[in-house]
Amino acid sequence: MAADTAINNQVLIDSLPEGKLSADNFRLSEAPLPTAGAGEVLVKTTAFAITAGTRAGLQGSASYAGAPQTGIVMNATGVGEVVTSEVESIPVGRHVVAPTGWQTYSVQSADAVTLIDAGHDPLHYLGPLGVNGLTAYFGLFDVGQPRAGDTVMVSAAAGSVGHLVGQMARIGGARVIGVTGDDAKGQILRNQLGFDETVNYKDAGFRDQLKAASPAGIDVYFDNTGGPILGAALFRLNVGGRIACCGVVSQYDTQRPEPGPKGIPGLLVNKRINMCGFLVFDFADRYAEARARINEWLSTGQLVALTDAVEGLDAAPNAFVDLLAGGNIGTRIVRVG
Amino acid sequence: MAADTAINNQVLIDSLPEGKLSADNFRLSEAPLPTAGAGEVLVKTTAFAITAGTRAGLQGSASYAGAPQTGIVMNATGVGEVVTSEVESIPVGRHVVAPTGWQTYSVQSADAVTLIDAGHDPLHYLGPLGVNGLTAYFGLFDVGQPRAGDTVMVSAAAGSVGHLVGQMARIGGARVIGVTGDDAKGQILRNQLGFDETVNYKDAGFRDQLKAASPAGIDVYFDNTGGPILGAALFRLNVGGRIACCGVVSQYDTQRPEPGPKGIPGLLVNKRINMCGFLVFDFADRYAEARARINEWLSTGQLVALTDAVEGLDAAPNAFVDLLAGGNIGTRIVRVG
Repeated sequence: MAADTAINNQVLIDSLPEGKLSADNFRLSEAPLPTAGAGEVLVKTTAFAITAGTRAGLQGSASYAGAPQTGIVMNATGVGEVVTSEVESIPVGRHVVAPTGWQTYSVQSADAVTLIDAGHDPLHYLGPLGVNGLTAYFGLFDVGQPRAGDTVMVSAAAGSVGHLVGQMARIGGARVIGVTGDDAKGQILRNQLGFDETVNYKDAGFRDQLKAASPAGIDVYFDNTGGPILGAALFRLNVGGRIACCGVVSQYDTQRPEPGPKGIPGLLVNKRINMCGFLVFDFADRYAEARARINEWLSTGQLVALTDAVEGLDAAPNAFVDLLAGGNIGTRIVRVG
Repeated sequence: MAADTAINNQVLIDSLPEGKLSADNFRLSEAPLPTAGAGEVLVKTTAFAITAGTRAGLQGSASYAGAPQTGIVMNATGVGEVVTSEVESIPVGRHVVAPTGWQTYSVQSADAVTLIDAGHDPLHYLGPLGVNGLTAYFGLFDVGQPRAGDTVMVSAAAGSVGHLVGQMARIGGARVIGVTGDDAKGQILRNQLGFDETVNYKDAGFRDQLKAASPAGIDVYFDNTGGPILGAALFRLNVGGRIACCGVVSQYDTQRPEPGPKGIPGLLVNKRINMCGFLVFDFADRYAEARARINEWLSTGQLVALTDAVEGLDAAPNAFVDLLAGGNIGTRIVRVG
């Protein structure tokens, strides 16, 4: 491939969503192939992940992702292959993880790139060995701190983070309740991933079902959603229970986030509940430790990483909209080229 | 006084409040003097404390105080003198703390009674050496964990717990912002108790004033109120900030607690905030340690305990209603007989 004749296919943020996100908020675009300067590499994207958290970046200032912008490439973590390199330690042909965004090529500075160890499946770096898996690992074990025999509840349980959280909790000896919005997903979690119970939050009897699924109450709630599921969890949490606040997917796809649950802070007081937000980046100095453990679980088959792949850059906008509506099971990735 | 001719004056819960509490929810009553049996003492009440938390006990089942009842004596912690004793270790004449309720006499089992050390002001056991002071101490130091130089915010800052929290935070080397609903109270907190800043949550510009009062953000928020003040605090908390959830006074005097603040859990995630409910009773094995330190601060004058006393059992209902409207400054007590 001659770099000077190639084109960089991109998906740009065309407009910010008013209300729910639509595929029309994005547009396809072409750009000349960028050139790696000193200390940079040019990466050809193999695949990138679509995650609910990036919706918050389109929502205004109240996000760790910063203020939203239009006319720029939509952001995403991806994996790819180095095609030109001005960095000695990152040779051409090497597989890397990088903030590729939704495009076929990107120039990356050396410090933005993570090398993928030989023998590892590069796609695992978008799932269990990537931000999703690390988020599940540190949020569960460091923030939620389940003990063997505890009951752990996780929302968005079939999602990219949730399906790993439930399995890790089970590996740690906990009883696991997964909340999804789809009975078919629940069945996969129970039958393939070893979840003890699943509950569908869209059912009218959701609160009663959650109660029935948690006869000993809930000790740790890993919250990916906020909103009414958080409210329901508060009523089932035991004295001294812990909530690991990972994300607020129920509130991302809107212009007007809802008020918080009624039990805040009254039930926190009555039940001495500890509720703690976290971002995975704060644990960056321990990624290697976590990846080693996760990789071992993957190699023994204790941990199963579900991947939900769509093909082609132009499929990304609809894949994102569908993800926010709960259409994915496991890590949603877009394969490129 | 001959016990068999004396009368026990009481205030009973006559009806449960619908909406706001009213003095009409209580009625005065007379009962024969009770008799201490084996292992019990008869206590003549000197004074009892009125605290916002007992309002929650009239509110339904979602309270650590249990389900509400009518026709019973209103509960309160009081101090009094032992007048008859069937317990060797608790002699007649001894001053004690006990769950006296709103009445002039009560029979107490030995294990319900705390002996007041000679040389201590018994009334301090309703304030800084009692539940209020212990709540301030453990909630601030064990849950909030301020470091020297931190900014600490406390709501209901002129209340029985709040006015002690602010002073303890200052003793610990923090900068202290108190939130009240009354400028005159704020002035007392700044001028007499050493608060650095006070803000009136009833002012239209409350959020801007809170921002101006916290140029370095807020590191620890001691929450006595919940509701919109909690919502405002969330926006000013720093990354890694901590919220000690002590009470929900904004939500007690109502049948319909409001939804929680909008920033829950989104801002907890973005700012990695730890929000933790607590009850002082969980620290019971460390009361002696706390009382020793608090008593030292009292004796050196570093800690000033404000007492807001009303006279006579029949003044209790209105004193309670007024407290819920923010009428007190410091610990509100009712002197009896």
